[in-house]
Amino acid sequence: MSIQDAAREAKEAARKLAALDGKTKNRALEGIARRLTERKENIFAANQKDLERSRKEELAPPLIKRLTFNQGKLDEVTTGITSLIALDDPVGKKLRATELDEGLNLYQVACPIGVIGMIFESRPDALVQIASLCLKSGNGVLLKGGSEARETNRILADIIAEASVDAGCPAGWIQLLESREEVQEMLALDKLIDLIIPRGSNSFVQYIMKNSNIPVMGHADGICHVYIDAQADPDKAVPIVVDSKTQYVAVCNALETLLINRSIAPTLLPRLKEALEARNVELRGCDETVGIIDVEKADEKDWETEYLDYILSIKIVGSPQEAIDHIHRYGSGHTDAIVTEDVTAAEDFMNRVDTADVLWNCSTRFADGFRYGLGAEVGISTAKIHARGPVGMEGLMIYKWRLYGNGHIVDDYSTGKKHFIHRNINIQDTAK
Amino acid sequence: MSIQDAAREAKEAARKLAALDGKTKNRALEGIARRLTERKENIFAANQKDLERSRKEELAPPLIKRLTFNQGKLDEVTTGITSLIALDDPVGKKLRATELDEGLNLYQVACPIGVIGMIFESRPDALVQIASLCLKSGNGVLLKGGSEARETNRILADIIAEASVDAGCPAGWIQLLESREEVQEMLALDKLIDLIIPRGSNSFVQYIMKNSNIPVMGHADGICHVYIDAQADPDKAVPIVVDSKTQYVAVCNALETLLINRSIAPTLLPRLKEALEARNVELRGCDETVGIIDVEKADEKDWETEYLDYILSIKIVGSPQEAIDHIHRYGSGHTDAIVTEDVTAAEDFMNRVDTADVLWNCSTRFADGFRYGLGAEVGISTAKIHARGPVGMEGLMIYKWRLYGNGHIVDDYSTGKKHFIHRNINIQDTAK
Repeated sequence: MSIQDAAREAKEAARKLAALDGKTKNRALEGIARRLTERKENIFAANQKDLERSRKEELAPPLIKRLTFNQGKLDEVTTGITSLIALDDPVGKKLRATELDEGLNLYQVACPIGVIGMIFESRPDALVQIASLCLKSGNGVLLKGGSEARETNRILADIIAEASVDAGCPAGWIQLLESREEVQEMLALDKLIDLIIPRGSNSFVQYIMKNSNIPVMGHADGICHVYIDAQADPDKAVPIVVDSKTQYVAVCNALETLLINRSIAPTLLPRLKEALEARNVELRGCDETVGIIDVEKADEKDWETEYLDYILSIKIVGSPQEAIDHIHRYGSGHTDAIVTEDVTAAEDFMNRVDTADVLWNCSTRFADGFRYGLGAEVGISTAKIHARGPVGMEGLMIYKWRLYGNGHIVDDYSTGKKHFIHRNINIQDTAK
Repeated sequence: MSIQDAAREAKEAARKLAALDGKTKNRALEGIARRLTERKENIFAANQKDLERSRKEELAPPLIKRLTFNQGKLDEVTTGITSLIALDDPVGKKLRATELDEGLNLYQVACPIGVIGMIFESRPDALVQIASLCLKSGNGVLLKGGSEARETNRILADIIAEASVDAGCPAGWIQLLESREEVQEMLALDKLIDLIIPRGSNSFVQYIMKNSNIPVMGHADGICHVYIDAQADPDKAVPIVVDSKTQYVAVCNALETLLINRSIAPTLLPRLKEALEARNVELRGCDETVGIIDVEKADEKDWETEYLDYILSIKIVGSPQEAIDHIHRYGSGHTDAIVTEDVTAAEDFMNRVDTADVLWNCSTRFADGFRYGLGAEVGISTAKIHARGPVGMEGLMIYKWRLYGNGHIVDDYSTGKKHFIHRNINIQDTAK
């Protein structure tokens, strides 16, 4: 089947899925969890093939680890499915209701976006998580996983498709793509795919954003900042910087550039240097920083680099505004934090910084769907429309307007024979 | 000033505007309304120049009418500003709040999108409406109006800029662009402009959507359908079709294709023909239609045409599903209606049709921001992310996540020393 046919099939199925009741979707999710458990030996065997081939191809150890799908991963994904079942059906939820006139009632009602094109990394557990999120939210999905996980992805996608169709879902709502060339073709299908969610390297996501007319939800880079204010408590500042930088260096919400107020720099920088170097972090500082602590000199390129590594650039600034200006110039609008005991400075910083996640006195690593309590995370968006920051299931939803009349025509209102009331209807009072 | 400099200035000002309190913005809106009234003779004189030049250039009479800015238009825009002042400040509104752990509180807070690029038609009153919406919502704006309205647009933009800056708004938040070439340049400024809202012809909007990486909110075409079900009440069906088609033919929510159930066609089509021909509507029917009433034959091209004229294509279908399939194949996801007395059929149609506005027993012409009670309309979107259908001020808003901690680090949670609570905080209980 061509990718276009696959997308067309997903589109047609998605339209049926959008009208499916919550009970059937939950029954399908239960069936998926059950069948994954029943067929776990087949899944683990498929995963072994992927692991063996990848080891032979000398895939890096961290990638091998992510590729592994074992009992622990199975438990994680089935627990995830159970918590999805417990959630209310997001489809059909009334967001707003207005009586336009007697007998003419308007409802803004949540509905799925349609067909999601999801491009993800080697982790096969992500396939299960994404597919169940799409099912619960009534979206069709085209999944493109890493080729190193192809055997595992195939059996997982087959099980999900079978179990969901057995429970009454329309066939074709989930489609697995396997080759890199198919991604290229996907980007042109703007009539069939409604949203692309890419997860991968900075350059890959940027490529997708630049080469498709389909809306893309995600983030290319995460150049995150911590600004240590003049009024910072050093006992909070040091652990926050260490955690933001080193708790997990290879991720988008890790700290890349530390901004520090001139007045506190001489006392705090030596402490920070000691704590960070104990964690093997290489420091690169601006001219002023180099005058206080013995570190490498940073250049212009450092401010715009997402290291994703044990490297931190440091810049001394004269004021919160200078910190904000630096963030707007070099940041990626992902996550930026202030450390201060001055409430006014903190509020002002949080008001002024134009970023998806703005934090006060805590680590940048908190900017994450699970930690935010959003349930399963669809991704993190640095876009400024639709969804921003960590995105949960609501990022897969849009709404339609439903207007119920009884023969009403506009001419009666433009001639003045009738008049609009525009009375809000309390949506709590109306049944779903 | 180059367009890039103008956009950069707007971006910087927008960041200040985003942090401005509601009182200052309201004072600015009051100042704008007052100054427009004080300087009305200058505005009318500028408008006279535009009208005279356009008459000489033989601009079509409907365009001349739309270009006119007189006392009536002034009253309309000042009334619009007054109602905007009465609205709550949309910036800073808490959308969601969660206690992640003791002393670690997360807020999802509404904020402006940033810089809006608005391209609009000849109506100078639209400039005032759009600028005041952007100001109230804290967005910077690049405005590109029609060149036929240049004198009027200039004085209006000057008055708005002066009055708002006098009230405390940052200079540069509103920028007027004048040449067509500037639109071209705008489309490339994806680092400075966050959202483009084009209003204009189908091909123009399509061109913009295809030639920019900036998100575009709007609609290219509006191929709207009415489906008359077997169980329709003819006394509702006829006026609804007449109103949908003829109440204003040149607009996106006007009816273009009528779908009618086979069982009701023989009795209803002659009545429809009479009523529509009395309004000078030319009818084009499918083969079956032509067998019942004497009208021109429709071809494939008719189903995909937005006439924006006194022409209606008619197709007989065997079932609601066949109507839905036709709508999905040829429609533009704008506005589609069903006429029926069968509640189940109506609900099913409304669930299944994938369109921004789905209507039951009323005219397609109701799909409009003013009629929906949204206040000032930003535009109508057929996109499926961010905003759909008629879009009010909320279409100019996004949110940011604000996390308040007290030295919290992620390591404590991944080592199991601390645990997340994820308790919802009632946003009614928290001050803004």
